[in-house]
Amino acid sequence: MEHFNISRRHLLVGSASAAALLTASKVGQAQEAKPLPDYVAYKDPEALIVHSNNTLETERSALGVQPITPDRQLYIRNNVSPPSDEIVADRDAWEVTFEGVGEPRNITVGELKTMGIETVTMVLQCSGNGRAYFEHKPSGTPWQVGAAGCVMWTGVPLRAVVERLGGAAEGVRFVTGTGGEEIPEGLDPLDLIVERSVPVDVLDSILLAWDMNGEPISLAHGGPLRMVVPGFTGVNNIKYIKKVALTDTETEALIQSERYRIHPVGTEGSTEYPSVWQMSVKSWITGPLETARAGINQITGLAFGGMSAAASVEVSVDDGETWEEAQFIGPDLGQYAWRPFVLAKELEPGTYRIVSRATDSEGNQQPEETEPNQAGYNHNGWRAPGVDVTVS
Amino acid sequence: MEHFNISRRHLLVGSASAAALLTASKVGQAQEAKPLPDYVAYKDPEALIVHSNNTLETERSALGVQPITPDRQLYIRNNVSPPSDEIVADRDAWEVTFEGVGEPRNITVGELKTMGIETVTMVLQCSGNGRAYFEHKPSGTPWQVGAAGCVMWTGVPLRAVVERLGGAAEGVRFVTGTGGEEIPEGLDPLDLIVERSVPVDVLDSILLAWDMNGEPISLAHGGPLRMVVPGFTGVNNIKYIKKVALTDTETEALIQSERYRIHPVGTEGSTEYPSVWQMSVKSWITGPLETARAGINQITGLAFGGMSAAASVEVSVDDGETWEEAQFIGPDLGQYAWRPFVLAKELEPGTYRIVSRATDSEGNQQPEETEPNQAGYNHNGWRAPGVDVTVS
Repeated sequence: MEHFNISRRHLLVGSASAAALLTASKVGQAQEAKPLPDYVAYKDPEALIVHSNNTLETERSALGVQPITPDRQLYIRNNVSPPSDEIVADRDAWEVTFEGVGEPRNITVGELKTMGIETVTMVLQCSGNGRAYFEHKPSGTPWQVGAAGCVMWTGVPLRAVVERLGGAAEGVRFVTGTGGEEIPEGLDPLDLIVERSVPVDVLDSILLAWDMNGEPISLAHGGPLRMVVPGFTGVNNIKYIKKVALTDTETEALIQSERYRIHPVGTEGSTEYPSVWQMSVKSWITGPLETARAGINQITGLAFGGMSAAASVEVSVDDGETWEEAQFIGPDLGQYAWRPFVLAKELEPGTYRIVSRATDSEGNQQPEETEPNQAGYNHNGWRAPGVDVTVS
Repeated sequence: MEHFNISRRHLLVGSASAAALLTASKVGQAQEAKPLPDYVAYKDPEALIVHSNNTLETERSALGVQPITPDRQLYIRNNVSPPSDEIVADRDAWEVTFEGVGEPRNITVGELKTMGIETVTMVLQCSGNGRAYFEHKPSGTPWQVGAAGCVMWTGVPLRAVVERLGGAAEGVRFVTGTGGEEIPEGLDPLDLIVERSVPVDVLDSILLAWDMNGEPISLAHGGPLRMVVPGFTGVNNIKYIKKVALTDTETEALIQSERYRIHPVGTEGSTEYPSVWQMSVKSWITGPLETARAGINQITGLAFGGMSAAASVEVSVDDGETWEEAQFIGPDLGQYAWRPFVLAKELEPGTYRIVSRATDSEGNQQPEETEPNQAGYNHNGWRAPGVDVTVS
C-alpha cells in the first residue's frame, strides 16, 4: 500500500494525443475535436473546446459554480503566438520599460516585487465572447459563453511604480502597454504588435501581475508579467508586458486604431468609433444543460457587472416570461469578480428554455438583446445564451 | 511559430525521478530530499518538503501571499494511506450512508448534487502544524508553518441533506464522519479507522464537498467526497467520507478517544482531555526569508482566526520589542479563510528577527508562546515561527 496509480486526469497531462482521443469520444461535442496545442498541453482537455492553436474556449459545464477558474480550465485567446518559453526561465530578470513618468527607466520583475503587493480577482473575458450569438454572423472565433474566466492576480499596483518613478508626466491621457510577442521579419509591426491604450483614469486599479491563482503566471497567460486592467476586456490586459508608457495619445497599432472598435455592421473599424474597453453586466446559465431529472433541480450560473459588482440575478425557466431571484453562493471576491448563483427549482417533466438576467450595483440590467456591431464584440444579451433542457 | 516548448514546471508533472533530482539540487534544503510519492506526482516538487509518503509540507516561501493555495502546493497529511484511485473513476456513484436522521439511507454523490450547493473558503491546517516549535520535541512529524493551506470547497450543506432525511434524531450531540480508507486484514479497525466526531452545534457550517478550488477533489485530498468542518483542524475534515452519523456519543475510534487530545506533557491521551477541534488565531511571516536588500522591503505573511475572521495583524522586526500594523491584501474570503498581509518597511543593513502577531474579530490575540501539550497540537505562539533575515 505504499504506491498508487495516478488518476486519469494526471496521466493525461502533457499527452496531447491521448487528450485528443478523449475529447473525440465525448458525447455531444459540437465540433470535431482538435488536440491541445503543445504550449497548453498542461490544460484539461475535457474542459476545453479547441477552436485553433490560439483560441480555446472553456466548456460551459466546466465553468459550473467556480468562483475562481483554474488555469487548467481557463480559455486562451492570443492575437499573436506567445514568445519562447525562455522568457519564463528567469522570471525576476524580465525587464519592463517605463515611459511618460518623471524618471523613466527599465525595471526588472525582481525590483517590481519590492515596490508593493496587491491581489485582485477579476473576470477575464475576451472582447468577442458571445460572438456566436450575433445574427449577422461576424467573422472571428464563434465564442459562446466560455471565452471568460474569473482569476486572481497578484502583483504591484501600477500607481506604486509611477509614484516611485516621480509621478506621471503632465497631460497624459492614456496608459499604453506593449506586449513581448515576437513580430516576424518582413511584416508590418503596426499590424501585428499587441499594444493597447486605456484611459489613464483607471491607472489606480491596474496591476503588473506575476502570479495568477497563487502560482507564477503561465506563459500561455502572459507570464512572467502581465498588465491587468480590472473590468476591461481581455485584449486590454497585456501579456509579457515589456513597456508601460503614460501617453497623451492612443497607440497607432492597428489592434487599437482599427480593430477592437464598436462599429455598425457593414462598416470598417476606425478611431471614430469607441474602443472595446469596459465590460458590461452579464450572466449565463451553467447547469443543468440539455437534460435533468424531474424534481428539485439546482439551476446554476455566473453573473458579473464588469466595472461594478453584480448586485442580483434572476432566472427564468420559460424563456423570460416569468423570473425568480437566484441566490449568490460562495465568497464575494470584489467588484470585478463574478458571482456564482443558484436557484433551487422544482421542475416537472417537460422542456424548458432557461435564461438568466443580472443587475449590477449601479442599477444596470443585462439587456434582452445586444445591439449588433460589425466585429461582434461585447455581447451581453440575456436571451441568446439560454439553454434548452429536457426534464424527464 | 506554431509550436512551443512547454515550460519546466509542466514537463516535471508526473515525473517523480526528475522531481527528486530538482528538489535535491535546491539551495538551503533543510533535509535530504525525498521524491514525491506517486499518488501526488502531479504536485510541485519545488513547493513541498517530503517528510514521508503521507506527510508533505508546503515550503514557507511558496505560501507567499496566496489567498488560495493551489492543489499542486497544498500539504498532505494522511493518517492511513488513500484508497485505490478506482473510487474517483465514477465520482457521482460514490455512496454515503446517513444515520441518526429521521429517514436513514444511502445517497450517491450524484443525488447529493441535487440537494444544494454552497462554497466555503477555509484554512485547512494539520492539528500538528508548528509541532517543531515545542521545546519538549513531541514525537510525530516536525511541521513548521507549512502543514496549512487555504482552499475553497464546493458541495452540499450537510444541513440540507439532514433536512431532506427528516431531520436529526432526538438527543444527538455529535456529527460523526467515517473515512473510506482501507483497513488491512488482521489489524484492529478501532486503531486505524479514520472516524471523528465533532459537536453537533457546528452542523450548519459543514459541507459535503466534491470540488476543491474549482476542480473535482483529487484523491490525495479526499475525493470523490470530503466532509469539511470550517474552522476545525485537518483531521476533522474526513476524506472519502462514506458515513455521516448524527450520534449521541463520540466514536470510540482511537483517533478520537486517545489521539488528537490536548494533554499535559508526559501523560497519555484519553477522553478526559479536550479533543483537537477548533483552530485558534495564528499568523506567520512568509517573506523576506533569510536575506533581503537594504531599502524598502515588502514584509509579507498570512493571518487567520480559526473560527472567526482575522481582524488585524502586527509585524515586528525586532523580535517583538516594537510592533507596526500590517495591511491585509486581496479579497476577504470569509471568516474561515486566511488573509495575506504586507508591511512596507525600510530596512538598513543588519540582522533582523521578524515576527507577526494576529488578533481575531473576537479580540483573541495570538499568544507569545503556546502551552506545551504531549503530542504537540495547536501551536499558535508568535515567537517561535519568527524568521532571521540578514539585510545587506
